[in-house]
Amino acid sequence: MAKRKLIIDVDTGVDDAQAIMMALACPDVDVLAITCVNGNTMLDQVYINTLRVLKTCDRMDIPVYKGTYKSLIGHDLSSEGQRYHGSDGLGDCPEAEPPYPNLIQTEHASIALLKLVNKYPGEITLVTLAPLTNIAVALRLEHNFTKKLKELFIMGGNIEGVGNVTTSAEFNFCTDPEAANVVLNEVSCPTYLVGWEVCLRHAQNWDWYEKVIERETKKAKFVESIMRSTRERNKNVIKRPFHSCDSLAMAVALRPDKIEESALHYCTVECRGELTRGQMVIDHRGLLKKDKKIKVVTKFDVRIFRELYEALFN
Amino acid sequence: MAKRKLIIDVDTGVDDAQAIMMALACPDVDVLAITCVNGNTMLDQVYINTLRVLKTCDRMDIPVYKGTYKSLIGHDLSSEGQRYHGSDGLGDCPEAEPPYPNLIQTEHASIALLKLVNKYPGEITLVTLAPLTNIAVALRLEHNFTKKLKELFIMGGNIEGVGNVTTSAEFNFCTDPEAANVVLNEVSCPTYLVGWEVCLRHAQNWDWYEKVIERETKKAKFVESIMRSTRERNKNVIKRPFHSCDSLAMAVALRPDKIEESALHYCTVECRGELTRGQMVIDHRGLLKKDKKIKVVTKFDVRIFRELYEALFN
Amino acid sequence: MAKRKLIIDVDTGVDDAQAIMMALACPDVDVLAITCVNGNTMLDQVYINTLRVLKTCDRMDIPVYKGTYKSLIGHDLSSEGQRYHGSDGLGDCPEAEPPYPNLIQTEHASIALLKLVNKYPGEITLVTLAPLTNIAVALRLEHNFTKKLKELFIMGGNIEGVGNVTTSAEFNFCTDPEAANVVLNEVSCPTYLVGWEVCLRHAQNWDWYEKVIERETKKAKFVESIMRSTRERNKNVIKRPFHSCDSLAMAVALRPDKIEESALHYCTVECRGELTRGQMVIDHRGLLKKDKKIKVVTKFDVRIFRELYEALFN
Amino acid sequence: MAKRKLIIDVDTGVDDAQAIMMALACPDVDVLAITCVNGNTMLDQVYINTLRVLKTCDRMDIPVYKGTYKSLIGHDLSSEGQRYHGSDGLGDCPEAEPPYPNLIQTEHASIALLKLVNKYPGEITLVTLAPLTNIAVALRLEHNFTKKLKELFIMGGNIEGVGNVTTSAEFNFCTDPEAANVVLNEVSCPTYLVGWEVCLRHAQNWDWYEKVIERETKKAKFVESIMRSTRERNKNVIKRPFHSCDSLAMAVALRPDKIEESALHYCTVECRGELTRGQMVIDHRGLLKKDKKIKVVTKFDVRIFRELYEALFN
Ligand SMILES: [Ca+2]
Ligand SMILES: [Ca+2]
Ligand SMILES: [Ca+2]
Ligand SMILES: [Ca+2]
Repeated sequence: MAKRKLIIDVDTGVDDAQAIMMALACPDVDVLAITCVNGNTMLDQVYINTLRVLKTCDRMDIPVYKGTYKSLIGHDLSSEGQRYHGSDGLGDCPEAEPPYPNLIQTEHASIALLKLVNKYPGEITLVTLAPLTNIAVALRLEHNFTKKLKELFIMGGNIEGVGNVTTSAEFNFCTDPEAANVVLNEVSCPTYLVGWEVCLRHAQNWDWYEKVIERETKKAKFVESIMRSTRERNKNVIKRPFHSCDSLAMAVALRPDKIEESALHYCTVECRGELTRGQMVIDHRGLLKKDKKIKVVTKFDVRIFRELYEALFN
Repeated sequence: MAKRKLIIDVDTGVDDAQAIMMALACPDVDVLAITCVNGNTMLDQVYINTLRVLKTCDRMDIPVYKGTYKSLIGHDLSSEGQRYHGSDGLGDCPEAEPPYPNLIQTEHASIALLKLVNKYPGEITLVTLAPLTNIAVALRLEHNFTKKLKELFIMGGNIEGVGNVTTSAEFNFCTDPEAANVVLNEVSCPTYLVGWEVCLRHAQNWDWYEKVIERETKKAKFVESIMRSTRERNKNVIKRPFHSCDSLAMAVALRPDKIEESALHYCTVECRGELTRGQMVIDHRGLLKKDKKIKVVTKFDVRIFRELYEALFN
Repeated sequence: MAKRKLIIDVDTGVDDAQAIMMALACPDVDVLAITCVNGNTMLDQVYINTLRVLKTCDRMDIPVYKGTYKSLIGHDLSSEGQRYHGSDGLGDCPEAEPPYPNLIQTEHASIALLKLVNKYPGEITLVTLAPLTNIAVALRLEHNFTKKLKELFIMGGNIEGVGNVTTSAEFNFCTDPEAANVVLNEVSCPTYLVGWEVCLRHAQNWDWYEKVIERETKKAKFVESIMRSTRERNKNVIKRPFHSCDSLAMAVALRPDKIEESALHYCTVECRGELTRGQMVIDHRGLLKKDKKIKVVTKFDVRIFRELYEALFN
Repeated sequence: MAKRKLIIDVDTGVDDAQAIMMALACPDVDVLAITCVNGNTMLDQVYINTLRVLKTCDRMDIPVYKGTYKSLIGHDLSSEGQRYHGSDGLGDCPEAEPPYPNLIQTEHASIALLKLVNKYPGEITLVTLAPLTNIAVALRLEHNFTKKLKELFIMGGNIEGVGNVTTSAEFNFCTDPEAANVVLNEVSCPTYLVGWEVCLRHAQNWDWYEKVIERETKKAKFVESIMRSTRERNKNVIKRPFHSCDSLAMAVALRPDKIEESALHYCTVECRGELTRGQMVIDHRGLLKKDKKIKVVTKFDVRIFRELYEALFN
């Protein structure tokens, strides 16, 4: 059977790193490209971080593209995510070696995306783990771009108005609300969304994580090092269990058959609120008379998530 | 022991009618006044409906005051609520007799409120079952007005961004978001809030309601008649169980000792969103650095609610 | 002939001081009351400043009322105006004597306004020289209040989007945009508006002012002292000629027959813009299909302005 | 001397048609490309209209590119402009011949723009006569794109808050406020802006126009036919003199030495206002502490405008 063709849009990020590694560990998946966008850290750092992840996995063959430096409407990157996972977004434990200047793809991520979907129409699964700027720009360049996708998995937004960067908004949507709005409104392929509260509900205890990470593989050592400061803070200071939003979204993308609860909704994004800018809005009662086209995932098989996460370190 | 002094702010409304009757049936409570505001129906009709409820209970001695005709910033009444409970807000089953022109109190509701709290400082429990315009206007006239209240119980807002008139907003807050915002931000007495989702979670089955309403009292006949069309629609068309937001909030106000779950939060109201205007925002993580002064009620003893509701018909 | 009955709403303020004195100097005018609101300085200081002006004119018989402490929707006073005319709003040259505690009217300004218009329906000219909060609150208490006014003169807003506190908004409208909006939308008596750009176009040279102020009257000495720092800054630092918005608006109110250019428009106020919050919007082309009910004054007889200003010091 | 290299971004439109023809008639100018965007009419019609103009001028050699179908944040085209110049944007006097399917450039306008500026860095004058979507998308693809332009001339916005589609906004900015904002904020080459009020102030009498258009050239006949209904309405119904915003902006671009009055400002666009969405905001007093980088043109030599316009028909 042919492998599933995956493109991953990232702002790597500790979270993205683990999700990318999870996809690479999956035998029936072929990662065609990784596209980068501003988010957890500045775009140039996102690019370097992504290459570092690929190098750790011996997969420098996968092309990595740089996308937009600013949000769709030109706002600079929120630095909230940056602080969260250290100043470099990867836990501030840099490599000794210098970065990878000769690996830069000169094509813009949005243009690369368009070329790939036109090369493999209807075959590509796109997984977005970052602000949706690259996807929105691709839609402006080719307005029926998503028609050529097989499916889209989005990590982003929230379902009950609970925010993680503001009172009301989740990081990926908050960083570029207009892009998120464009994507949710214009998408025309099957689309799955994993929001912030759902990630929290699928959190795992630290004992499990620590046992998993204890392995003596290169990948385990890498994740352990980039996760160290996040673990320290979440486990001991904030007293919050292990969660990795991007990994959960990737698990859902890799095994959509293991979604245990979901519902189709029309979802959109508040772009104007003083407090709610970036909040996802679900039209529960169909008041807006729009297509219910986003599958909002609320429950995923936890054992499968653990299996996929554990396999990441093989 | 002295009775608790209650003032009820209403936009009567089938829901308010039941809540007023619940308060009147409570032996340890003294309803000092009822203040009216635009909401479920136009102010003049709200006034007539309220007098009709008092007449049914033989309590025409309680003074009823008219308040504002428009929202704080001058918007006309949303007509959504009006449609919901019929064109007169009381199920369109008018009395044969004419209204009550000679009972009109000429004082504005907000001024009446101020006089009463200055007469009984620290003694009055205010229960608001309607858009908060009258309370906000009172705050503009006397900015420390709520300091003189004993406590405030609010039916309004939502806790998870679920709306009942728009995708994102509950009726009372949606009808006057600025007034709700003023009250939540400026209130300085103990304040309890019962939001829309919480009302839904305390819904009862129709069998119970129908058994209760079957009684041969004047009050039961009255409620049965004004509730008839709402029951028909909710039971048979929408397939939604019995709920009465205002009655639940009144039950909470009458028996705050029976609150089973609540949390103090800083709560505010989005006034600018395109979709979220009127949505309540809870600052779960304390990002706004404001006083956690609203007790958000999430669970109330259902048996007590039923008891109080059943006693209403005695 | 009966004198014209005037009420002046102020946030005194060097500008208001001169305008009040201009009205008091006018023989055919009877100032019934002065109502105070937050603005150029805090409400309690506005009150004291106003009494100081009345004392200078030996007119302590005129009742002065305190109004609202916050804007209609509860924002605290912008402190921009405060800085502009010194920390006390009157050029920081306080009197030796203590303030006037025994003169405080206990009634709220908005309620006092309502009582007076009900006492003299159709006879009162209201001149507002401050944020419009008191007037908006009066409209919430009695929604047809302005029907009982003879006419309304407003200093506030702008006509070409030129701001004096933000890029786009004039101080009085910027301090309480919702109140300005309520008044412009709900007013139902003949209404004249003098905006910021118009005040600038009627500026006078400093030579004229300095000759006028040179007189040896108590009033001239008072104005000279409270104007000193403003004159110093405008004349020598900013290089801007003499202008007094409130005086110009008062001159227009005293001699509306000397308006040389004006046009009726529907005017409203942007309350939501990021940059334009508080900007007045003129519907030049009638797109909003609303009544053209605000007479926007663009030119006034300069000689009459000078005469009225000079007479102020008699 | 080398000819000036021009790219024109259009939403052709009667106005754009004349401006394009003015540029083509100018001997020292080389039009490298024309890029199309939604605006006066739908993108596909804009494309056809533009080819029709080129054909009239025997300049089918100039490549024409299609750009975005929607505004930057995904709003559909305002149909206001469409109605203004007839349903096809060119006065509803279609050609007998079919359109030009074999001339379609497959490259997106924004990508074509980037290729050209990279081919001729520092040499290209860009003249935009339409909503700025294509330019904003180009900035998202290459954030220092405008650094490689020689200069930018913009027809759009307003300087005193006077609108032509809403109370407060000019058509090009109103149709895509976010794109206008992106361009005004991110542009880094010398930039000239010709706003709506300025176009009105440079209006000409119809006698002049009618004498000019009377000529027996193919071009004159073409303009006369596409202008007929606009002339009829403006001359006889609205009683407004001849004006052509896009032609004036093109004249300014062709002869910037004939600007008679202009000032450098920081300019931005209100994107959130209820009434002012799309209004240009000029920071007259430098309150926003931003670079004064937009040369706002307020007066242009009228004789030169007439000369350039008359030459159009040769
Ligand atoms: Ca991420
Ligand atoms: Ca109610
Ligand atoms: Ca003033
Ligand atoms: Ca155009």
